[in-house]
Amino acid sequence: MSATPEANPRRETLWRIIFLSDTRPGRAFDVALIVLILLSVGTLMLESVDELREAHGRWFSLLEWTLTGLFTLEYLARLWVVRRSWSYALSFFGLVDLVSILPSYLELLVPDTHYLMTFRVLRLLRMFRILKLAEYSGEANVLLNALKASRRKIAVFFMTVMTLVLIEGTVMYVIEHDENAGFRNIPQSIYWAIVTLTTVGYGDVAPVTVLGKMMASVIMLTGFTIIAVPTGIVTQEIGREMRGAVRGPFRRCRECGWQENDPSARFCQQCGTRLEM
Amino acid sequence: MSATPEANPRRETLWRIIFLSDTRPGRAFDVALIVLILLSVGTLMLESVDELREAHGRWFSLLEWTLTGLFTLEYLARLWVVRRSWSYALSFFGLVDLVSILPSYLELLVPDTHYLMTFRVLRLLRMFRILKLAEYSGEANVLLNALKASRRKIAVFFMTVMTLVLIEGTVMYVIEHDENAGFRNIPQSIYWAIVTLTTVGYGDVAPVTVLGKMMASVIMLTGFTIIAVPTGIVTQEIGREMRGAVRGPFRRCRECGWQENDPSARFCQQCGTRLEM
Amino acid sequence: MSATPEANPRRETLWRIIFLSDTRPGRAFDVALIVLILLSVGTLMLESVDELREAHGRWFSLLEWTLTGLFTLEYLARLWVVRRSWSYALSFFGLVDLVSILPSYLELLVPDTHYLMTFRVLRLLRMFRILKLAEYSGEANVLLNALKASRRKIAVFFMTVMTLVLIEGTVMYVIEHDENAGFRNIPQSIYWAIVTLTTVGYGDVAPVTVLGKMMASVIMLTGFTIIAVPTGIVTQEIGREMRGAVRGPFRRCRECGWQENDPSARFCQQCGTRLEM
Amino acid sequence: MSATPEANPRRETLWRIIFLSDTRPGRAFDVALIVLILLSVGTLMLESVDELREAHGRWFSLLEWTLTGLFTLEYLARLWVVRRSWSYALSFFGLVDLVSILPSYLELLVPDTHYLMTFRVLRLLRMFRILKLAEYSGEANVLLNALKASRRKIAVFFMTVMTLVLIEGTVMYVIEHDENAGFRNIPQSIYWAIVTLTTVGYGDVAPVTVLGKMMASVIMLTGFTIIAVPTGIVTQEIGREMRGAVRGPFRRCRECGWQENDPSARFCQQCGTRLEM
Repeated sequence: MSATPEANPRRETLWRIIFLSDTRPGRAFDVALIVLILLSVGTLMLESVDELREAHGRWFSLLEWTLTGLFTLEYLARLWVVRRSWSYALSFFGLVDLVSILPSYLELLVPDTHYLMTFRVLRLLRMFRILKLAEYSGEANVLLNALKASRRKIAVFFMTVMTLVLIEGTVMYVIEHDENAGFRNIPQSIYWAIVTLTTVGYGDVAPVTVLGKMMASVIMLTGFTIIAVPTGIVTQEIGREMRGAVRGPFRRCRECGWQENDPSARFCQQCGTRLEM
Repeated sequence: MSATPEANPRRETLWRIIFLSDTRPGRAFDVALIVLILLSVGTLMLESVDELREAHGRWFSLLEWTLTGLFTLEYLARLWVVRRSWSYALSFFGLVDLVSILPSYLELLVPDTHYLMTFRVLRLLRMFRILKLAEYSGEANVLLNALKASRRKIAVFFMTVMTLVLIEGTVMYVIEHDENAGFRNIPQSIYWAIVTLTTVGYGDVAPVTVLGKMMASVIMLTGFTIIAVPTGIVTQEIGREMRGAVRGPFRRCRECGWQENDPSARFCQQCGTRLEM
Repeated sequence: MSATPEANPRRETLWRIIFLSDTRPGRAFDVALIVLILLSVGTLMLESVDELREAHGRWFSLLEWTLTGLFTLEYLARLWVVRRSWSYALSFFGLVDLVSILPSYLELLVPDTHYLMTFRVLRLLRMFRILKLAEYSGEANVLLNALKASRRKIAVFFMTVMTLVLIEGTVMYVIEHDENAGFRNIPQSIYWAIVTLTTVGYGDVAPVTVLGKMMASVIMLTGFTIIAVPTGIVTQEIGREMRGAVRGPFRRCRECGWQENDPSARFCQQCGTRLEM
Repeated sequence: MSATPEANPRRETLWRIIFLSDTRPGRAFDVALIVLILLSVGTLMLESVDELREAHGRWFSLLEWTLTGLFTLEYLARLWVVRRSWSYALSFFGLVDLVSILPSYLELLVPDTHYLMTFRVLRLLRMFRILKLAEYSGEANVLLNALKASRRKIAVFFMTVMTLVLIEGTVMYVIEHDENAGFRNIPQSIYWAIVTLTTVGYGDVAPVTVLGKMMASVIMLTGFTIIAVPTGIVTQEIGREMRGAVRGPFRRCRECGWQENDPSARFCQQCGTRLEM
C-alpha cells in the first residue's frame, strides 16, 4: 500500500492526494485538476478567436497566468513528493506536465512561442489515467485490449492501404493532371486518394475528365470492401474480449497443471484427470 | 387489468381508449393520433417554405389552429381520465403534450414565438410508445438493450474521440491558420476535425498547405480505425442480445455438469439425465 | 420435370430454352439476353450524352430499333410458349418486359416519351433470376435471407432515424435560417440532416453560425453510433445465416421426433433417448 | 532446402541472397531493396511537383538514372541466378521488374514516355512478398483468406450495387437534367450515384430540385443498409478465419461422440477417453 514508507508523513499524505484517488481529498484533487485542465484548454480555444481576444485579451492573459501558476505549483509538488524525482520528470506524464507550463515562461524571453502552449491539450490524457481507477476501467480495458490485439492486423491493413493509395494516386495523376489543377502533382493526387478511400470526400479535389470519373468510380467501389476490413478486425477483437470477460477463466487441472481447459470441461484435456466441479 | 377500478365507467372507458391499444376504439384513437401528429408536423414543415406560406398562408393558419384545438382537447381529456393528473402533467410525455400546444396560444400574446411550435415534432416520439405494444416490440427491445449495454463503452469511446479531436484541431490550427480562413481559430479547427473524423467531409473547410494536407491524411487514416470501434461495440451487443433473445440462458446439468444445454432442454445433451424444470 | 406436358414439342423446346438454363441452347439464350440487355442499357446511357447523340444519333437510333425489335420478338415468344399467357403478362417480369419495349413505339405517337425507355434498366434484374440457377445461388441466398431477417429491426431503425432527422432538421432551421440560405426552410434542413447523418456530406448545405456548427458537431458525433446500428444488425444476421449453412442440420430424435437437437448432442433434449451417432 | 543443387556455388549463394531471407545478407538485401524502391517512388512523387522539378531537376534526373542502373543490375542478376530464366521473366513479379526499368530507357528513344515509370510503384507489392516470410505472415493470411472467402458474396453484392446505381442514376437524370448541369447525361448521373452510395459525397454534383433532393434522401437512407452488407460479410469471414487460426478443427471423441474437443486435447473433455492423435 504505502509505496513511500520512509518519507515524512506530510509528504506521504500529499503523495497520496496527488497520485492516488482512494481518499476523499485525493478524489477532490483529481476533480479539481480535471476542471483546471478543461478550463485552461477552454481558455486557449477561446483566445484563438480573434474577436474574443481583441475584446477580452486582458482577462485571458490573467486567467492564463493564474493557471500557469497553479500548474507550476502542482508540478513542483509532484517533483517533491515522488521518491525518484528524475524518473517522474522523465516519464511521459512528467514531460507533458513540464511542456504544458514551459511555453508561458518561454514567451517572456522569445516572443511568438505562444502556440507551443497547445501542448497543454495533452494534459487531457491525464483524465484517462484517473478514469482507469474508476468504474469505467473494465470497459476501457475491453476496448484497449481489442485495439492492442488488432495491432498487427491493422498494421498489415495500413500497408495495403498505403500501397493502394500510392498506385491510385499515381494513376489518377496520369489521367487528370493536364486538365485539373487538383491533380497537378502526385502527392496532391495521393491526398485525393486518401480523402476518397476514407469516404471523407471534401470535394476540394474531384475528377473532371470522363476517364478520371470512371477510374474514381472503380476506386470508390473497391474502397467499399476495403473500409470493411478494419471494422471487421475491431468487431471480432471486441467480441473476443467481451466473451473472455463473460465466459470466465479457463480451468486449471490440479494433476498436471494444464491451465487452458474449457470452463465447461469435465476431464482435463491433457491427462484425462476428472476436474472438480 | 383495470388500473382505475374506482373510476366511473365512462372515464374508465375513455382512459382505456386513450392510453391503451387493446380495444378496437383504442387502436383507432392511436392511429388517428399518429395521423394528426404527422399532419401537424407536415404543416409546420411546409409552412416554413416561403413560397408556400405566401401563397397558402391562410390555409396553413386554419389547419394549425384546428390541430391545436384538437390537441388541446386531447390534453384536457388525458388530464381528466388519469387518476393522478399532476404526475401525468409532469411526466415526460405530459410535458411534451403541453409544450406542443402552448406556442400557438403564446403567439397571441408575444409575437414571433411561433418557432417554439417546433417542439411539436417531439410528439412523434409517442409513435414509439404505441409501437411498443405492437409486434415490433421484440425487435425494438433488442436494439434498445444493445445500445443500453453499449452505454459505457461508447462513453469511453466518446471521451477518446473528444480528446483526439481537441488535439487534432489544435495542431491543424497551428499549421493552417496563417493561410487558410477555414482554420482561423481553434473551435473552427475542431469543427473541421469532427467533420473529418466522422467522414462527413463537407469541404467547407479543407487544408490548403502541404503540411496541412499531410497531417489531414494521417488524421483520416487513423480515423478509419477509430470509426470501427462504435460499430464493433454495437455489433457485438446486438449479437449478444439476439442470442439471448433466441436461446435464453443455458441450463446446467447437475449430474455431469454440462453447462450448455438449451434453455428448452428437458434432458441433458451429454448424459441423458432429466433436467429439473 | 416437364411442366408443360401437353404442349406441342416445338413449343416445349422453346419454353425450355427461354425459361430454363439446363440445356446448352438455354444457357446460350440467357447469355445472349444479358448481352443484349447490357447493350441496350449502354446505348441508352451513351445516347444521353449530348455530344455523342449529335455526332452518332443515326446509329443510336438504328441500334435502338433493332434491339426494340428483338425484345418485341422475345416478348411475343414468351407469351406464346408459356401455358398461361395472362399470368406471365401480369407477373413482375412480364410487366417489366412489356414496359421496356412500349416506350419506343409510344414515341411514334406521342413525342418526348423517350425517357420512359429508362425502365429498360429494370430488365437488368433478370440477370439475378438467371444467377439464381447458377453456383452463386447459395451466396445470394445468405445475403438475401440476412436482409429479410433484418427487415423488422431495420424498419424500427428507420423510424428512429426519420424522427431524429425531423427533429435535427427543425432545430438547425431555427438556428441557421436567418443567416444561411441553405437552411431557408425545414424540408431543406431535413435534407441537410440526412446528408449529414449518412456521412455523405456534399457540402452544398453547411452550417455557418457558431451555434449551428456546435449543433452540427453534436449531430455528427451522435450519428456515429447510429450508423453502427444497421451494420450491427446486418453483420449479426449474416453470421447467423452463415453458421446455419456451416453447422449443419439439427438432429432429429427417432423416438419422440424432436427436430432441434444440437448437432453435437448425444441424448435427445426432450425424451432423453440416446441419439444414433 | 537447396532448390538449385546443380548450380555453381557462387550462383547459388547469390540466389539465396536475392530470393530468400533466411540468411543475414539475404535480409540485408531485402531491406536495401525496399529502401531503394521507396526512394525511387519518393523521387517520382516529388519530381511531379512543378516547383521542385524546376529547382532540382538535375538531381532528380541523376537519382533516377542511378536507381534505374541499380534496378537493371538487380534484374540481370535475378535472370542469371534463377534456373529457368524465362519462367521468371514471364512471372508477375518478373514483368513488374522489367516494366519498372524499361520506361527510363524508352524515353531516350521516344520522348514523353516518362509517365510509364509510374509502373515502378507496383514494385512496392514486392514488400508484401518479403513480409510473407516475416512474423506478419499469419495476420496477413487471416485477412487475405477472409477476403478470399468473401469473394463470391462480394461479387453478388457488387452486381446488386451496379444495378442499383444504374437505376438510381437514370432516375436522377430524368428528374434533374433540365435544371442541373451536374446531371446532364446518364453516365454523369451514375457517377453521382456511386459518389453518394459510397458516402464519399464530393459535392461537385448535387441535386438542386425539390424532387431530386427527395429522391437523393431516399437513395442515401437505403444506401445506409446496403453499405452495411460488405462490412457484415468481411466481419463474419474474419471471425471465422480467426477462430479457425486459433483453434483449428475440433476433434471428435470416438467413445462418447463429443465433437468439440480442442484441437490440442489429448483426452475427451466429456468422458475422459484418450483421443487418438
